[in-house]
This record gives sequence, C-alpha cells and structure tokens, in this order.
Amino acid sequence: MDFEILINKHRSIRKYKDKKIPDDLLNKILNLSIRSSTAGNMQSYSIILIKDEQKRKDFYKQYHNQEMVIQAPLLIAFCSDFNRQREWSKINNADVHYDDLLAFLIGVVDASIVAQSFALGCENEGLGICYLGSALRNMERTAEFLKLPKNVLPVTLMVVGYPDEDAECKDRLPLEALVHNNSYKDYSAEEIANYYKEKDIKGWQRYKEMNMFKNLIEETAVENLAQLYSNVKYTKESHRKASESILRCLKKYNLFNFN
Amino acid sequence: MDFEILINKHRSIRKYKDKKIPDDLLNKILNLSIRSSTAGNMQSYSIILIKDEQKRKDFYKQYHNQEMVIQAPLLIAFCSDFNRQREWSKINNADVHYDDLLAFLIGVVDASIVAQSFALGCENEGLGICYLGSALRNMERTAEFLKLPKNVLPVTLMVVGYPDEDAECKDRLPLEALVHNNSYKDYSAEEIANYYKEKDIKGWQRYKEMNMFKNLIEETAVENLAQLYSNVKYTKESHRKASESILRCLKKYNLFNFN
Repeated sequence: MDFEILINKHRSIRKYKDKKIPDDLLNKILNLSIRSSTAGNMQSYSIILIKDEQKRKDFYKQYHNQEMVIQAPLLIAFCSDFNRQREWSKINNADVHYDDLLAFLIGVVDASIVAQSFALGCENEGLGICYLGSALRNMERTAEFLKLPKNVLPVTLMVVGYPDEDAECKDRLPLEALVHNNSYKDYSAEEIANYYKEKDIKGWQRYKEMNMFKNLIEETAVENLAQLYSNVKYTKESHRKASESILRCLKKYNLFNFN
Repeated sequence: MDFEILINKHRSIRKYKDKKIPDDLLNKILNLSIRSSTAGNMQSYSIILIKDEQKRKDFYKQYHNQEMVIQAPLLIAFCSDFNRQREWSKINNADVHYDDLLAFLIGVVDASIVAQSFALGCENEGLGICYLGSALRNMERTAEFLKLPKNVLPVTLMVVGYPDEDAECKDRLPLEALVHNNSYKDYSAEEIANYYKEKDIKGWQRYKEMNMFKNLIEETAVENLAQLYSNVKYTKESHRKASESILRCLKKYNLFNFN
C-alpha cells in the first residue's frame, strides 16, 4: 500500500475477528520491521510473540482487562534488550557492561522504532493493531510474565489481528502545537486553550460516551477532559507508584549501576 | 511509494546535497507523522526543527563532529514532553503532575514512534535520514542547546536532506535471534556465535575500512567487533558517565519525583 494512504488509514483497533495470522505473513512483516535503524546497529531489542491463547488469557486476567487481548490472535511485546549484546561480549572476551540507564534507554528507543515499523507493516497487510500502555505502567509484572532475564525490560505491548470494527479517526493536536523552530518556545495560556480547543470538545465527548468512563465521570464529578486525564485516568498517585516500580525494575534487572 | 519497497530501501544517509527541503513538503510529512499512535492519545512529545545554519554549526561544534549535521539542511529533535500537558492541566484546574519517571518514559516511547513515522515519511519523498545517538548520550547539553523547559527532555535526533551517496544496506541479526515465542528464551553461547556470525565478519570489516576507526583499532589492539563496541566505541566508563548525566537531567527537569 502507498505509504501516505497507509499512515492516514491508521486507527487503533479494539475489536478483532476470530481469525489467526498466517505464520509466513507474520514473518514477512517482522523481517521488514527489523530493517529499521537502531543505535550503532546494535539492535538492542527483543520481540516476544504471544500467540498461545492460555498465555493471553493469563495476561488478560492478571494485568489488564481489555477484551481485545483475548480476541486478537497475537499479543506482542517489544523489549529493551542488552542481555544478548552482553552474551555476545562474553564469548568475544569483550567488556561485559551495558548495565545502566543509558543502555536501558537506548533499548527503549530501538524497541519503539521497530514497534512502529511493525505496526505499519501489519496495517499494510490489512491487519489492525492497538498499542497497550501497560508495559511501562506494569513493568515489574510484565517482566515476570514474559520471564525476562537481567538487562531486558518491556517497553511496549501491542495486540494484532483482523479488524472487526470501523474505528473512528482520532483527533490530533494541530501541527503548530507540536513543532518548534530552532529551539523550544514555551506556550502561553491562550495558545494552549487554542491548541486543545478541538480535543477539549471531541475527546471529552468520546469519553462521556464510553461505558467504562460514563459512570466514573459522574462519580468523580470531573468537569473536563484535562481533569479526567490528570485526576482520574492517570492520577499522580498511580504515576508515582508506577515510577517507583520502574526504578525497582531497573535495579533488579541490572540496569541502574553507577560508579 | 509502496510500504514494502519503502522499508526495504532504508539506508542511513551520511552525505547530503546542498539543497533545501521545501517547507510545504516538510509540513506534509510532519502532518502524516503525527497520525501515529501515542499513549492515551496524549501526544507526549515535541518536535524541534533546526533549519538555521548557524544553529546547526553550533551543534556540530559543541556536541558532535559529524559533517552531515552541517551538510544536511535539517536537524530535527524529538523530545519527551509533558510540559504542554501540564500547562493544559493548569488552565483546566486539573492536577498538575506528570513529573516522574513514568511520564518521561511515556514521552520517550511516543517521541520514538513519531520519529520513525517521520523517518519513513521522509524516505517516501526521496529524502535521506540518519538518526543521531547523541540525544541520549549528551542529554544535558542537548537539552540546554534546545532550550528545553522543565518536563521536556530530548529522546532522539535526526538529520534530513537529499542523499548524496548510495549507502550500503547494513547487516541485521537473523529474525530468530530477535524473536521469542510466548516468553523470553535465553541464548546459549553456541546460538550467540551462530546469530552474530555474519555481523562478526561484515561489521568488523566495515569498521576496519572506516577512517575514523582504522587507527583506533590498531592503537587499542582490539581483536573483534564485540571488543570494538564494548571496549572502545561504547565503553563502560562513557556509559556510566552518560547515565549519571541522564539521572541529573531527570531530576533537574522535574521528572524524577517520588513519594
């Protein structure tokens, strides 16, 4: 498919048909994805395919609660991985390090880049995808679930399958809200109000219509989308707890060593 | 361009023609890129375009030393950004937080995903790109250079322009080295040796032919590619120093608060 058409067609898909993805198709997409750039061509990532239905059910029960994890035939995890590079270093009598914050972050960027190439590759074949934020928020549990060794941590998860819905095209902030010239230009309150105008209406409307959030909005008496995000959906407390968990993970998985 | 052809054509380009990128073409590519998924549709990233020649020269002098930064008409920075979301929260009387490790990482993934869509969008228009690893390694200096406010930090940099070289297609590890099924399967020494076989020969050969590394390889007497990576190019010391700098940045830019 033409790239412009492909990227404009992107919708996150949350309903899937009961239809498996042929292995050769999946391998073809994976082989295309790994052409993506990585820092120093080190390919500091690993990809974990979870096709097994029971394993996806376990994931659904323990970590998430989104039906699509069971519906879609594939759950896929993209991980920051310096374990492989360390093993390679070992057998070549090279220094075995990459056990720090920089290594972890190099892998986070590499894994995200290859994930996006994979997402586009799937959509190019008529498959639908949806990223799951839970890999970062539930890093400890996700790392255990995937049986990750030291120096490997999850970055992002995705479900993949044949779409069973026509999802709507989501609003985006206007380009001028996202792009700066030569250096960062901070925003005035007027600019923010103007840039978020469409989102404040459409996003708020969308959440008010969602079963999951309708009652929650009434119960918590939040009055706008920004409050729903900051006070209900992504609270300060949940962010702090997740951040503590991420730091614990970095230490436990040998990625936070300093002099 | 067809997506499969596009992604297979990817080469990192390090020599550029003296030819500007038309603004409308750049805006078109940016508008396509921002269709990419982001966590919670928060678009927790900012993009900084550095077209100004003097600014690129300053960057070249201070941070890097790669000729392509001056040659290419565009240097572009992708940043993790929760400053904008906080400003939006403020004017809506919502909790103003997102000042922690989770927020930073959500932005890192968002920024990397949009960077890869942008990279493919450029290549689709006949432009060449090259990612620069320096945004993570030199986070403090890069953040100052871009005049980033609190809650914003650089994730990756890229140069963009019209290619003036036919770059070779780089080796990649075989798919089976990168992909695991259902959970992570650690590698035996034999598997590692087998997976890195091609890289050990081709990558080593490539570095030995590069002016920048030829003398360095002789001086340091490293014997193989893994040693060049771990003992010379990405030393433990440089990794530790960069990791300390990243941690200082996270604290200084209000992204490392805990209970």
